[in-house]
Amino acid sequence: MAPLTDLYQLTMAYGHWRAGRHRAPAAAELFFRRGPFRGSFALGAGLAEGLRCLRAFRFSAADVAYLRSVLPSTTEDAFFDYLATLDASEVTLSAVPEGSVVFARVPFLQVKGPLLVVQLLETTLLCLVSYASLVATNATRFRLLAGPDMKLMEMGLRRAQGPDGALSASKYSYIGGFDYTSNVLAGKLYGIPVRGTIAHSFIMSFTSLEEVQPRELPPLAGGEPVDLVALAELWLGQVCELLQTPPEKANRGELAAFVSYAITFPRDFQGLLDTYCVRRSGLPNFCAVALALHQLGYQAIGVRLDSGDLAQQSKEIRQVLRACGAHFQVPWFETILIAVSNDISEQSLEEFSREGSEIDMIGVGTNLVTCPLQPSLGCVYKPPLGIERPQEGLPRAFSSPGWTTPALSAFPHSRGVPAL
Amino acid sequence: MAPLTDLYQLTMAYGHWRAGRHRAPAAAELFFRRGPFRGSFALGAGLAEGLRCLRAFRFSAADVAYLRSVLPSTTEDAFFDYLATLDASEVTLSAVPEGSVVFARVPFLQVKGPLLVVQLLETTLLCLVSYASLVATNATRFRLLAGPDMKLMEMGLRRAQGPDGALSASKYSYIGGFDYTSNVLAGKLYGIPVRGTIAHSFIMSFTSLEEVQPRELPPLAGGEPVDLVALAELWLGQVCELLQTPPEKANRGELAAFVSYAITFPRDFQGLLDTYCVRRSGLPNFCAVALALHQLGYQAIGVRLDSGDLAQQSKEIRQVLRACGAHFQVPWFETILIAVSNDISEQSLEEFSREGSEIDMIGVGTNLVTCPLQPSLGCVYKPPLGIERPQEGLPRAFSSPGWTTPALSAFPHSRGVPAL
Repeated sequence: MAPLTDLYQLTMAYGHWRAGRHRAPAAAELFFRRGPFRGSFALGAGLAEGLRCLRAFRFSAADVAYLRSVLPSTTEDAFFDYLATLDASEVTLSAVPEGSVVFARVPFLQVKGPLLVVQLLETTLLCLVSYASLVATNATRFRLLAGPDMKLMEMGLRRAQGPDGALSASKYSYIGGFDYTSNVLAGKLYGIPVRGTIAHSFIMSFTSLEEVQPRELPPLAGGEPVDLVALAELWLGQVCELLQTPPEKANRGELAAFVSYAITFPRDFQGLLDTYCVRRSGLPNFCAVALALHQLGYQAIGVRLDSGDLAQQSKEIRQVLRACGAHFQVPWFETILIAVSNDISEQSLEEFSREGSEIDMIGVGTNLVTCPLQPSLGCVYKPPLGIERPQEGLPRAFSSPGWTTPALSAFPHSRGVPAL
Repeated sequence: MAPLTDLYQLTMAYGHWRAGRHRAPAAAELFFRRGPFRGSFALGAGLAEGLRCLRAFRFSAADVAYLRSVLPSTTEDAFFDYLATLDASEVTLSAVPEGSVVFARVPFLQVKGPLLVVQLLETTLLCLVSYASLVATNATRFRLLAGPDMKLMEMGLRRAQGPDGALSASKYSYIGGFDYTSNVLAGKLYGIPVRGTIAHSFIMSFTSLEEVQPRELPPLAGGEPVDLVALAELWLGQVCELLQTPPEKANRGELAAFVSYAITFPRDFQGLLDTYCVRRSGLPNFCAVALALHQLGYQAIGVRLDSGDLAQQSKEIRQVLRACGAHFQVPWFETILIAVSNDISEQSLEEFSREGSEIDMIGVGTNLVTCPLQPSLGCVYKPPLGIERPQEGLPRAFSSPGWTTPALSAFPHSRGVPAL
C-alpha cells in the first residue's frame, strides 16, 4: 500500500530525512472545505480502509528497488535502507465512526506520528476517504429524497471507475442508506443484500411460445405438473378482455419469456414490462402469467420499468394490478412491487414524490456511482489549525497541538434510513 | 473475476440453462451510442483487461457457495455444479488494438461463445472497458488542446474512485497521450514515467534560514563544500536589486525550504513559487537559489505555480528568468521549465493557448480522472445489429451473424501525441 502515493511525497520525505527531522512528531487532519453537492453535510467513510492501509503500510524490497530507479540519482543509499524498515506502527489514527455525519472544515480523520510517515500517508488516505465519503453522501441524499420506506438498489457496476471503484460504490452506498446492490462480488465480500430482475435481452431472446422449454410447472402444494404456456394463454384472453386491449397486441415472444422465467423461478417471478408496449403487451402478459402462477399457488413478486414517464406509468400499472386483483379475486395482486430504473437522479426522485408515484423500489446506477453533480469531494489533509507559531523544534506544517475531537455523533444505519 | 457481475445476469443464466440453451452459440458487441464529451470520437481502452478477465473467468467453490445463498431456493443443484465447471475457454474476444480511435455505434469489442458465458460477461466487460475508454478519451482531448510539445502529467490519485480507479486513471491517461503520472504505484506497475515537485506544506514547514540542515553543498566538479545558505542570501540581494523588489519581502522560510531542497536535490532543484507572493518572494528566492546552484555548477530544472492567473504569471516568470539569465550571464536560465497545476480543465488549456502562455508542463487531476463533463461513457453490450430473424435454434438476443471488423486504424502513442 505504501507506494500508492504521489512521487512528491517521497522527494519531500527525503528532504525531511536528510534534514534529520523525519522523526519529528507531526500531525495532520483530513477534512473538506465545502459540503458536497451544495449541501451542508457529508458522511465520513472509508475510515476503516484508512486503518487497514496503516496496518499494511510498508515498502517491499521491490518497492524500494523501484524508488531507487525514479528518485534522483543523488539520493543516498541510507534513505532507501530507511524506507525498507519503515512502517506505520508509531502512527495514531483517530476518526469519527464510519458513516458519521460530518461537516465542512471539521476534521473527521486525524493522524499523529513521525513527520515522514504522516506525510507519506497524505495521498493514500485522501484516495481512500474522498470517494468513499462522496458516494456515501450521494447515497444518503437519494435516501433522504426517497423517504424511509422506498427500497433503493445500487446498480452502477458498469459505470464506475473499474472493479474497485464499483465495489467502493456498492459498499459506501449501503453505508449511505441503500438497501441492495446488483453487484454479486460486493454482496459476497461485504454481505450487502443483492437483488436483480431480468434484462430486455432475455425478453427479446424469445420470439414465440414454441420456444418455452420446459413448459410445465407443478402446483406449489404438489400434484401433476401443469402446462403453464397454455394456462398463461388462457389468462391472457381474460386479462385483455378486462383491460379492453387487443390480445394480438400482446407480444408472444415477451409472453414466452415471462412464462419461461416463471417456470424457472415460480416463487420469484418478476416481469420487465417495457420491451414492447407496456400497456398493451408487457402488462397484460405479466398479469396473465402472474394469474396462471396464482392458480398453481404461487405469488409473483414484482415488475420493473426501464423507460418512459416512470411515475405516471407506475400509477397506471397500480390501477391495472388493483383492477385484476379485484376482478379475479386475488387480493395480493395490488401489492405487487413496482420497481423502476433508467438514469434515476435526485431530480427524478423529486418528480416521483411530486407526482405521487406508486413506485416501491428504485435502481440507481450512473448518477449514484459517478456523482455527476460533484465527482470529487476535494478533501484536504493539513496540519491542525490554530497554530500561530511553530512549536520549538517542530516543522510548522505538521506541528502537533492538542486537538479537540469534533463532537460528532455516529450515523446509525438502521433500516437503511439515515436519521438526521 | 466471474462474480464481478450483476445478479440478474446469473438469474437469466439459470433461465437459459434450464431451457437447455446455455450452450447455444451467441455473440455480443460492445459500443457506445454517442461520442463522449460532445465529441466525435473516443479511444477504445481496457481491452487488455477484458482479455485478462476472460482468462481468469471462473467461479470458485466459495463463489458458488455464495451464489447458492442468494439465488432463489428453487434453483437446481445441477446448475451450481455446472457453474463450478464454467470457464471462458470457448469464448473468442475480438477487439481493436488498445487505444484505437473508435466511433459511436461502431463496435470495438466483440465476444462470441456459448450463450450463458457471453451473457455473464456483459457487466464485467462493460465495467472494465467503459471508464478506461472514457478517461483515455478525456486525456486525448487534453493532449489535443495542449499541443504535441506540452508535457502533461496526471495527478488525480487523491480524486479517483479509490486505489484501482486511480491506477486506471494513470494507465489510461498515459494511453491517451499524457507523459507522466504522480502515482508511484502506477509507475511501478505499468512503467509510466513518474514526476513530482514539492508541496506548500514543505515550504511552510520552514520558518527561518537557521532551520536548514545540512547547510553545505560541494560543487558539482568536486572540491570544498560551500555554505549554500550564505551563498543564496548573497544572490538574493543581487536578484532583488535587479528585479527592484524589496529583499525583506522575500520570505526567509521559503528561502530556507528552497535551499534545503536544493542541497537535497542539487541536480533536480525545483521551486513552488506561490506559497507567499510569487513576484516578491517566490520568484526572487527561486532565482537566488538557482544562481547559487549555478555558481557551484548545477542547473535548476523548474518552477511550479498552483494558484492565480497561471498564463499571465507564466509570462511574467519567463520575463524574470530571461532578465536574470541575461544580467547574470546564465544562458540556460530562460529555459527553466514552468509547470502549472490547480483545477486545470479543457477551458484552462484553451485560455493558456489564447493568452500565449509560457507554460511548459501542466498537471491535471480532478478534471482528468473524474471526467466531470461526462463521468460515464454509457457503453452497451448488444447482440450484433442487422438481425431481422433469429437463426434457426438460436435465441435472438445473442444470435451470431458474420460481422465485419470495423476498419479502425491503431492509435500510435508516439511522443505522447495522438495522430488524428
